[in-house]
Amino acid sequence: MQPVHKHTASTLMDIALDAFGSDKAPEPEIRGAIQACRALPVRVHLVGPERELRDLLDEHLEDEDLPIVIHHASEKIGMDEKAAHAVRAKKDSSMRVGLKLVREKKVAGFITAGNTGAAMVTAKMVLGELPGVDRPALTARMPTVTGSPCVLLDVGANVDCKAHNLEQFAVMGEIFARSILRIHRPKVGLLSIGEEESKGNELTREAFPLLKALPIHFIGNVEGRDIFNGAADVIVCDGFVGNVALKTGEGIGRLFRDLLRESLTTTVTAQVGAMLSRKAFNDFRRRLDYNEYGGAPLLGVRGVCIIGHGSSNETAIYNSIRVAMEFAKAGINTSIEQELANRPQHPPKPPKDQHPDGSVQ
Amino acid sequence: MQPVHKHTASTLMDIALDAFGSDKAPEPEIRGAIQACRALPVRVHLVGPERELRDLLDEHLEDEDLPIVIHHASEKIGMDEKAAHAVRAKKDSSMRVGLKLVREKKVAGFITAGNTGAAMVTAKMVLGELPGVDRPALTARMPTVTGSPCVLLDVGANVDCKAHNLEQFAVMGEIFARSILRIHRPKVGLLSIGEEESKGNELTREAFPLLKALPIHFIGNVEGRDIFNGAADVIVCDGFVGNVALKTGEGIGRLFRDLLRESLTTTVTAQVGAMLSRKAFNDFRRRLDYNEYGGAPLLGVRGVCIIGHGSSNETAIYNSIRVAMEFAKAGINTSIEQELANRPQHPPKPPKDQHPDGSVQ
Repeated sequence: MQPVHKHTASTLMDIALDAFGSDKAPEPEIRGAIQACRALPVRVHLVGPERELRDLLDEHLEDEDLPIVIHHASEKIGMDEKAAHAVRAKKDSSMRVGLKLVREKKVAGFITAGNTGAAMVTAKMVLGELPGVDRPALTARMPTVTGSPCVLLDVGANVDCKAHNLEQFAVMGEIFARSILRIHRPKVGLLSIGEEESKGNELTREAFPLLKALPIHFIGNVEGRDIFNGAADVIVCDGFVGNVALKTGEGIGRLFRDLLRESLTTTVTAQVGAMLSRKAFNDFRRRLDYNEYGGAPLLGVRGVCIIGHGSSNETAIYNSIRVAMEFAKAGINTSIEQELANRPQHPPKPPKDQHPDGSVQ
Repeated sequence: MQPVHKHTASTLMDIALDAFGSDKAPEPEIRGAIQACRALPVRVHLVGPERELRDLLDEHLEDEDLPIVIHHASEKIGMDEKAAHAVRAKKDSSMRVGLKLVREKKVAGFITAGNTGAAMVTAKMVLGELPGVDRPALTARMPTVTGSPCVLLDVGANVDCKAHNLEQFAVMGEIFARSILRIHRPKVGLLSIGEEESKGNELTREAFPLLKALPIHFIGNVEGRDIFNGAADVIVCDGFVGNVALKTGEGIGRLFRDLLRESLTTTVTAQVGAMLSRKAFNDFRRRLDYNEYGGAPLLGVRGVCIIGHGSSNETAIYNSIRVAMEFAKAGINTSIEQELANRPQHPPKPPKDQHPDGSVQ
């Protein structure tokens, strides 16, 4: 199927999309793909059970001719499946098939709104790490009061980190902020519990001098509240702490919304007030809406892999496709590779065939 | 000075208050003490430079006769001073003098809104740990959608914890929730990044079976978002993670408020709406206001020590005094001591004079 389209076929970027990722899949995926193909120079490769997808896609497209192709994958990984087990057991999952398209350079990037753990494991297995990267990191764009997001990483790919992992996260996050957020000289902070270098836990105290020595604009330790106040453009932490921060933010956001709704419906005056201020509320909600940002890139793998929230809707999928395209176009992985190639390896590996005591075997 | 008062002097509970703790000290402290003495059966012992306090107190009291006494302390510890150094250098600080009153049983509890680090170090030094407690923990009451707060601990007393520290935090937090929040059978969760026992970092995976074995209602792992949704009454974590969660919550709360204010002033309609819904907003703000909860108890020291936020206002100080009284009355420390006396010591210490290999020296 060669679609007739306002973008000529040769200028389209190919992006693979896990059609069975999100909680309500494949509806948001199909709608998001259609929206993207209408607006962006992209060819979307929907990955999943072909027959099921074909019928639904035809139904949604009616007679519209869009550059959407289907790649068959017989298995889906569920949200509640254990990552390691699901990845081992399901050799023909939509995640694995989609990521293989990236590895084989048939597409420029892959997107899934599915099981985050499984997506990370599959991406590391299928794509592997970039040279110089020990551990890929999951990033999240957090809303700030300035309007420009703060890049938080790692938010869940690595629960127990070493200081040199945080160092690499800083390098990758800084390049991401420069390339995608177009921040000239991103301010990079280390998430801790006090500003001074001596504050923090063993990990942050060890990571501090490593980050300080990097050729980046390192602003030192920052605290949880600095994620949202624009103090830093990039904030680095281990995946356990980052995940707790991310979900704490989500949790209090939801609490805020619920309490506000409750407060605003308690009196008639308040109800009238709420009615009048509805537009303002909607503006406000949009600025805090994770769906607007699209998915979170997994930085440090050989290829583009964007992981979205399970609750992604059509807009979130559309934005994830946009993010994947930007990511691929910006050549972030090449920059990361170059930057890390110039850095010493951690931990320094002894030359081959040499015993740790220095003697040659 | 023996004040004439609606509560007879003999029924008053004595509470010491660091008069030079908060950012705007001693104004909020003096006002909060006055408010407390008017409403509660308490005698407040203001601790700080006597002459300065005497003049200000007289000014505020005018002719009112309230059970407020002054204890002289010549030094104040600043917010930005390094805890360890300040505690060593200032032997006559208001914190140390106030905590000595607790140790000497002249008062039932001590409150400060000052330098948290210095307060914790001083409390541990002056009061010492309760038998069976290896590390005291700082607690925070987090707002939830149910209206009943969630007790989060540790939020900053211990940055690098062992599994048995988390076990003791669970015991202490559970007793606190039963005694102060009057929850019959508090649900205790372990802060992690996934529900299953296998999810988390090394520390939480090691702590999980210890918490499971406790005679408490352990509900397993919880996530950052569960702090606010009422899933748990008590959530246990190491002090680094807890502090990040606490400050992330504060940060997004502030972001929410700022964005809302901005959204609501952008259009005339929204402005009218905001005016009409002002009462609802105020109700709502109050539910999220840390000042309403009073300070955070340091659990596990021999005595009552409540540490408030630096930005504490008069109401926060009043509420901290109320919390200290409740804490002392509930006999929480006795309960903690009894509960932990029945538990095995971690790490098990070899009997005296016995070599680790089992041989008696």
